[in-house]
Amino acid sequence: MKEFELIKRFFTEQVIKRKDVVLGIGDDCAIVSPSERQNIAITTDTLVAGVHFPHETSAQAIGHKAIAVNLSDLAAMGAEPAWISLAITMPEVDLKWVEGFCHGAFELCEYYNVQLIGGDTTQGPLAITVTAQGLIPMNKHLTRSGAKAGDWVYVTGEIGDAALALKDVFNEINLATEYRESVRRRLDYPTPRVLAGQALREYASAAIDLSDGIISDLGHICRASQVGANIVLDDLPISNALRDTVSLEEAFEMALVGGDDYELLFTVSEDNKVGMETALANSGNTITCIGQLNRSEKITTTLNSKAIAINAKSFEHFASSKK
Amino acid sequence: MKEFELIKRFFTEQVIKRKDVVLGIGDDCAIVSPSERQNIAITTDTLVAGVHFPHETSAQAIGHKAIAVNLSDLAAMGAEPAWISLAITMPEVDLKWVEGFCHGAFELCEYYNVQLIGGDTTQGPLAITVTAQGLIPMNKHLTRSGAKAGDWVYVTGEIGDAALALKDVFNEINLATEYRESVRRRLDYPTPRVLAGQALREYASAAIDLSDGIISDLGHICRASQVGANIVLDDLPISNALRDTVSLEEAFEMALVGGDDYELLFTVSEDNKVGMETALANSGNTITCIGQLNRSEKITTTLNSKAIAINAKSFEHFASSKK
Repeated sequence: MKEFELIKRFFTEQVIKRKDVVLGIGDDCAIVSPSERQNIAITTDTLVAGVHFPHETSAQAIGHKAIAVNLSDLAAMGAEPAWISLAITMPEVDLKWVEGFCHGAFELCEYYNVQLIGGDTTQGPLAITVTAQGLIPMNKHLTRSGAKAGDWVYVTGEIGDAALALKDVFNEINLATEYRESVRRRLDYPTPRVLAGQALREYASAAIDLSDGIISDLGHICRASQVGANIVLDDLPISNALRDTVSLEEAFEMALVGGDDYELLFTVSEDNKVGMETALANSGNTITCIGQLNRSEKITTTLNSKAIAINAKSFEHFASSKK
Repeated sequence: MKEFELIKRFFTEQVIKRKDVVLGIGDDCAIVSPSERQNIAITTDTLVAGVHFPHETSAQAIGHKAIAVNLSDLAAMGAEPAWISLAITMPEVDLKWVEGFCHGAFELCEYYNVQLIGGDTTQGPLAITVTAQGLIPMNKHLTRSGAKAGDWVYVTGEIGDAALALKDVFNEINLATEYRESVRRRLDYPTPRVLAGQALREYASAAIDLSDGIISDLGHICRASQVGANIVLDDLPISNALRDTVSLEEAFEMALVGGDDYELLFTVSEDNKVGMETALANSGNTITCIGQLNRSEKITTTLNSKAIAINAKSFEHFASSKK
C-alpha cells in the first residue's frame, strides 16, 4: 500500500548517523561494520496494545517505551546501545500517530546515539517489535549467572511507581494530583539505566533489568546462579507517592511484584562494593542495597528483622495481567 | 504468564550452536562475536495473520515462511545467514502450534547453519517478527543502487506460482490436482536463494528479492540506480502450472505483480555475464535473462518485440491486498 511508503519518510528523518553504519534504511538489509575487539549484544521485545501498554497511551509514550525497554535489556548486559530495527504493525495508516511515535522513539535514540537501521510497517492490530543491538568489549558482558552466595543485592532508582501508575490509569487508587504527572511518567517514559549498566561491567557479579518485578527478576538471577536471596523490605527504595497513596504492605507488594520499573537489579561481592559505589556515583543513578544472596534455593523477605511471607498469589495475578 | 515460559523450552531445543555465539537464549541479551573483517547485514520482517498468510496456513508453514522471507533479504545482499531473533505474538498459548512453528522454522535454520539467539513471546493477535543477521566480507554487499543502463536483468527460478497458489486458496481458479501440491509449496514454503546471493557478490551490479512482484521490486532498483528497464514478456520464466491454469495475459500479470515468489532479481553488466553464469551454475539455481536496463525513467514491457502496456491497476490491487 502506497501509504506505508509514506511512513518510511519518518524513519529516514532521524538525526543520528553513526560511522559504523555502512548502509542504513532503504535496501533489503542494513549493513553495519562493528569495530574489532567488540562483541555485540542483541535483544528483541514486543509491546502489544492493551497488554504491555493501555490502549489510551499516547503515540509518543509508546515510541519512547518501545525503545526504552530494549535499551534497558542492553543496559542489563553492560552494553553501549548502537542500532535499532523497528517493526510496527498498525490497524491503519495514521501519519499523525507515526509522527508522534517517531518523536518519542527518536528522542531516546538521539540521547544515546542509537541509529534506526531498519523499519517494517505492516497492517494489523497495534504492536511494536524492536530489536536493539549494542557494543561491548570482549568478555566484559554482565549475565544473570555470575552471582554468588554472600553477594549484596542492589537496585537503581525507586521501585513500584510504574505499578502505581497502572492502578491510577484503571482508577483503582486515589493518587494525589501533585504526584500524578511524575508517577505516570514512570509508566509511560521509563528511563533505561544505560550508563549505570556500563559502569557495572567491572564490578557486578550479575545483573538484570526490572521488567516483571523484583521477585520474578531476582528469581531469574537466583536460578541462573544457583543461589537464594533475602530481601530486607525496610530498605526497599519506594517513593513518597507510593508511601502516601497505599498501605505499606501494598507498597512492598507493588515494589516486589509490580514490574515495569526498568531499573537495574544487580549483585556485587563484598570486595567490589566500594569500587562499584564510586563508579556508580558518576553515572547519575541512585542505588540502594536491598538484601543479600545466600545458599538457600528460595527468595525470602524480612521486615524489622523478622521473616514475612511474600504474597505469591498477587504476583501471579500481576504477571498474568501483563503477558 | 507461566505458559509463556514453557514456550522458551522449544526455543532452546534447536540443534545449531554456532562458535560465534558467546551467549544464546536465556539472558537479557544474546552476545555474538563476529570475526574481524566481516560486516553484518541486518533485516526485520513482520508476518501478520490474514495479511501476509491466509489464516488457515499451517504452523509449520508459518514458521518456515517467517524465517525464509528474512533469509531472502539477506540473500539479496549476498550475506551468509548467521543469527535469528524471533518475536511471536499469539492469541493464546498453544504448545502444539508452537511445536509446529518451531519445526518449520528450525528446519530452515539448520539447513543454513543459523542460530536462534533470542525469542520473545507475547499475547495478542497472531503476528511474527523476525530479525535476521548475516555476515559478509567488507565492501562486498550487493545493493539496489549499483545498476547501470545497459545491464541485463535476471531472475532466479520461476515467477508467479505464489500468486497462483493464493488464487487457489481463495478458490478463484481451477488448478489441476497434479499441480496443487507443488504450487501451494511455492506460497507456503518459499526457498530463500541464499547460495545464489553469495555467488552474485562478485558479479551483480544490483540485487533485490522478489517479495512484491517484478514491477514493484525492479522499480526499487530503477529508482535507487536512476535507470529504466524493459522486460521481455516472452522470456519470463513461468511454470507449466501457471501456463496451463490461466490465460497467457493473466500469467504475465501474476509474474509481474503477484509477489511472494522470494526469487532474486539482479542486474549484470555485459562484461560480467559469462562469469556470473558460471558462478551461478554451481549454486543449483536456474536463472533467466528477462530484460535490460536503459536510460529511460520507466519500466516498459514488450511481447513479440512489440510494446505492450502493463496493467498498473491490477498491480495496485495486488499490492493493497498484501500490505
